[in-house]
Amino acid sequence: MPQNIVIIGAVALGPKAACRLKRLEPDSHVTMLDQTNLIAYGGCGIPYLISGDVSDPDQLQSTSFNMLRDEDFFKHAKDIDVMTNTRAVSIDRKKKTVSVQNVLNGNKKILPYDKLVIATGSKPRRLSVPGDDLHGIFTVSGLNEATAIKQEIAGGKVEKAVIIGAGAIGLEMAEALADLWGIETAVVEIMDQVLPGIISPNLARMVQHHMEENEISFCLKEKVERFEGENRVKTVITDKKTLNADLVIMAVGVVPNSVLAREADLEVSSAGAIRVNKELQTSAPNIYAGGDCIELNNLITGKPGYWPLGSLANRQGRVIGTNLAGGQAKFEGAVGSFVIKLFETSVASAGLSIETAAKEGFDAVSAFVVQFDRAHFYPEKDLLYMELVVENGTGRVLGIQGLGPKSEGVVARVSAVASILKYQPTTADISNLELPYSPPFSSAMDITNALGNTAENILAGKNRVIDAGQFADWWENRGDDDTFFLDCRGWGNAEPFVKKYPDHWKSIPQDELWKRLKEVPRDKKLVLICNTGVRSYEAQVTLDQEGIQDTYNIQGGVAAFKKWGLDL
Amino acid sequence: MPQNIVIIGAVALGPKAACRLKRLEPDSHVTMLDQTNLIAYGGCGIPYLISGDVSDPDQLQSTSFNMLRDEDFFKHAKDIDVMTNTRAVSIDRKKKTVSVQNVLNGNKKILPYDKLVIATGSKPRRLSVPGDDLHGIFTVSGLNEATAIKQEIAGGKVEKAVIIGAGAIGLEMAEALADLWGIETAVVEIMDQVLPGIISPNLARMVQHHMEENEISFCLKEKVERFEGENRVKTVITDKKTLNADLVIMAVGVVPNSVLAREADLEVSSAGAIRVNKELQTSAPNIYAGGDCIELNNLITGKPGYWPLGSLANRQGRVIGTNLAGGQAKFEGAVGSFVIKLFETSVASAGLSIETAAKEGFDAVSAFVVQFDRAHFYPEKDLLYMELVVENGTGRVLGIQGLGPKSEGVVARVSAVASILKYQPTTADISNLELPYSPPFSSAMDITNALGNTAENILAGKNRVIDAGQFADWWENRGDDDTFFLDCRGWGNAEPFVKKYPDHWKSIPQDELWKRLKEVPRDKKLVLICNTGVRSYEAQVTLDQEGIQDTYNIQGGVAAFKKWGLDL
Repeated sequence: MPQNIVIIGAVALGPKAACRLKRLEPDSHVTMLDQTNLIAYGGCGIPYLISGDVSDPDQLQSTSFNMLRDEDFFKHAKDIDVMTNTRAVSIDRKKKTVSVQNVLNGNKKILPYDKLVIATGSKPRRLSVPGDDLHGIFTVSGLNEATAIKQEIAGGKVEKAVIIGAGAIGLEMAEALADLWGIETAVVEIMDQVLPGIISPNLARMVQHHMEENEISFCLKEKVERFEGENRVKTVITDKKTLNADLVIMAVGVVPNSVLAREADLEVSSAGAIRVNKELQTSAPNIYAGGDCIELNNLITGKPGYWPLGSLANRQGRVIGTNLAGGQAKFEGAVGSFVIKLFETSVASAGLSIETAAKEGFDAVSAFVVQFDRAHFYPEKDLLYMELVVENGTGRVLGIQGLGPKSEGVVARVSAVASILKYQPTTADISNLELPYSPPFSSAMDITNALGNTAENILAGKNRVIDAGQFADWWENRGDDDTFFLDCRGWGNAEPFVKKYPDHWKSIPQDELWKRLKEVPRDKKLVLICNTGVRSYEAQVTLDQEGIQDTYNIQGGVAAFKKWGLDL
Repeated sequence: MPQNIVIIGAVALGPKAACRLKRLEPDSHVTMLDQTNLIAYGGCGIPYLISGDVSDPDQLQSTSFNMLRDEDFFKHAKDIDVMTNTRAVSIDRKKKTVSVQNVLNGNKKILPYDKLVIATGSKPRRLSVPGDDLHGIFTVSGLNEATAIKQEIAGGKVEKAVIIGAGAIGLEMAEALADLWGIETAVVEIMDQVLPGIISPNLARMVQHHMEENEISFCLKEKVERFEGENRVKTVITDKKTLNADLVIMAVGVVPNSVLAREADLEVSSAGAIRVNKELQTSAPNIYAGGDCIELNNLITGKPGYWPLGSLANRQGRVIGTNLAGGQAKFEGAVGSFVIKLFETSVASAGLSIETAAKEGFDAVSAFVVQFDRAHFYPEKDLLYMELVVENGTGRVLGIQGLGPKSEGVVARVSAVASILKYQPTTADISNLELPYSPPFSSAMDITNALGNTAENILAGKNRVIDAGQFADWWENRGDDDTFFLDCRGWGNAEPFVKKYPDHWKSIPQDELWKRLKEVPRDKKLVLICNTGVRSYEAQVTLDQEGIQDTYNIQGGVAAFKKWGLDL
């Protein structure tokens, strides 16, 4: 029997649910409304619109076959009624109606429904500090605001910009402003790293270093206290300094748009996200919700999580569409997959980082490996820098992350592990993960497998490691303690370091170590160094056998600390 | 207690097992022998050595830090004794000894062992036909033979070459000869497609078309009957034609080297592969085997399988190394992951193809999707052509495969699905597969998710499809039957086809279809066409609703049949 469906929100999830339902139940009637005039666009494309990679906002709103997804498109191609510039004011669950109002002319209307979908998305947080209402301060909330930012820039009056927040959107916006427009861009972040909560401090520092090489400056552990300017913003004042700015973009996260749901007495979390079951039904079975306004089951922790991502919204949209038509589709939750392109680098992650794992109460360690994306003898290749987070004792894999060239090398590995995280794999599953192999795509023992192997060795206490940050710290304090830096590479690699730091840097190539054991001091903490951490691990095994055990293998070796920004 | 370990075979698995054991038990003694003088090289790099991408055989034998992995390397860096040019003649399981002989001077020796590893690998099949002993006929069996092939080519006397076998090695060798050396290269294959047993006929035809565009010619369904020439090969005579050839490469598969194991009364399959348990022990618990000489559990069918791949060998090597040291590592089996670069294309697969699924007794169907690798609004992008094989009734996913640009786009998707195949996923798991999303890397609804969705729709009978081959067949016979070709794209796309084929090609854009239903004939078989198969599916739904159900959506649309080589 044909149904009457109302969908509140027409970006990402809404259109997907509507189209799926219409394909399954062509006779049902769908009304989709949105409070703006722009619908069904790819919001994740906004940074590329601002950078100029995408030249026209219409491109973000078009299908892959270049049809603009506007009201007419939905009416004719999909038989879906769309009401733009229309706000849902309230839901009457008893009467099964939604009261709506046109935001331009104020006209009101009551829409009856058999089933309702709440796809109200999220809205950007705004810093509430003095001067936050000055002109030139933006959030990245939608296509209209993105177009406004682009107009500001294209006007040629923006020489300096400040981005607040070093999360994904903040970093993408920083690149967009600096790369194509040549705007002097600073990023202010209250936490002590970029991409906080997503990647480890170790990888974050590598990302930051890459962006600094591309002229972005960072002010970490700084809090914005106020904005100053006359009418238009001129300076951003933090707890540490004053930054000049012709443009400010606040990218300090988003919050779920759930007022409507809460006012309708639907279950909403304390963080403001709508609660749904696996069928994506709210606490009222005939009202579905999905996308940026809901909380999801974290498939790793089993606790609620929040991931405002267009990809999840689209997939949830299909699940809702199926279920509106009487189906039994489920959306089990998420592990938190992530990828970003920053200049010439890609950064990807899935699951928990070492820090979030600790916060969630896991006793976790991380293995870090640097290895080529392709066979080392294949001419075109790049180094990947990757980290696997595993639980002590059980060997359970909690997350993976890494950075590498902007090709799909990192995301391919992260995808493979992301896919199995819900099955609770252990290190052995990663050691034997069956990635397709051929020299132009991977090594016979791929970096992913190497991560599993390394994690297993670390958990077994066979590989005792430090990361680049720890190394930098020990190196900086090398005069103060009894640390000894042992270079396990060939003399050719070690020589410049030995000559520059004769008192602290010692060369014994790994393949000569067992013959030159007498040269190794027994009363010092030893830092073992090679190009990527493979030979220094071998050296550690040899030294263990000799009873020399106060040794630390720098994971990723020289490649890691160079990428980190340490220039010895 | 220190053990005495003997390892027979020093490529891939042997060295890996030896090094792992030595790291876990440095006091144990390892002797590794090989019947050739070249050890521990990356055999998968041979096509790149021949093409010239890898300039020197030493590169295939070196570590990533440029140390040659020869006897000295293993002695000094790893404390492993290597005996090259040494053949294992027999195993005495009672006495726990291996009798070996130097192939150069005939000297014999008896090696005692506590545990033994058989890593004897595989050898290439040779066609046994008249003239098979002529000079200029090679197999691709190892680094020495590869060097000999390269010398022939570099001598400048090879203008025409014939490759026998269109499997992975055959196609890689064809590219190597044709691309850099400009050799006129033909590939003869007894089956009716390239990469038989690996990818579907539909994708195979696309691969073939791409290689033909790169000047490789193919003789499919042809059997080599003899070689002719005086001393040196001059012609290859098949059951259909005569091909001139200055060089012939036989790439018709490999067989396990298991004579030694069989003669020692170890369990060996009828196909000649050594049987092992999950700990990779042979039927004698103190004798391990791995790599190209063993059979593995097929994790999809549960039956024995055979995958001679360096990647599996390396991972098994580590498992054996762990177990030699008293560990409990397991190698559960394989799903058969595969990837190859061919000119500007990559082709990857995992699990069963539609044809192998049928052979294994599955009632399977395949979903085929063409979609961009990145967000459609992102400026740099390429089309991917991918196929998901699923079981009727259960919706179980049996395999994935695809082709695309030579970047990692295809292999990333195949990796993600390959990783979960052992968990027996269904289409819903693929529809919601949580791949990391960002416009430079994927679409919000990635092609992988779209494959899950499409498969579900096909299984539900909602999307009735044909592939490019079926389309080509119906198109060719368009005069003979009552097939009607309905173009669902905009007029701009359809116009050239309508003008060229006014009697057979009709344009009704999908978004006008419900208004123009009267123009659709009700007594004809309808083939629905759009760019990639999305709008034609929408049209099919609309027509279904009208009771017009003898309709067929060409999967992948115009993009698919163009890639397939059909030029309308």
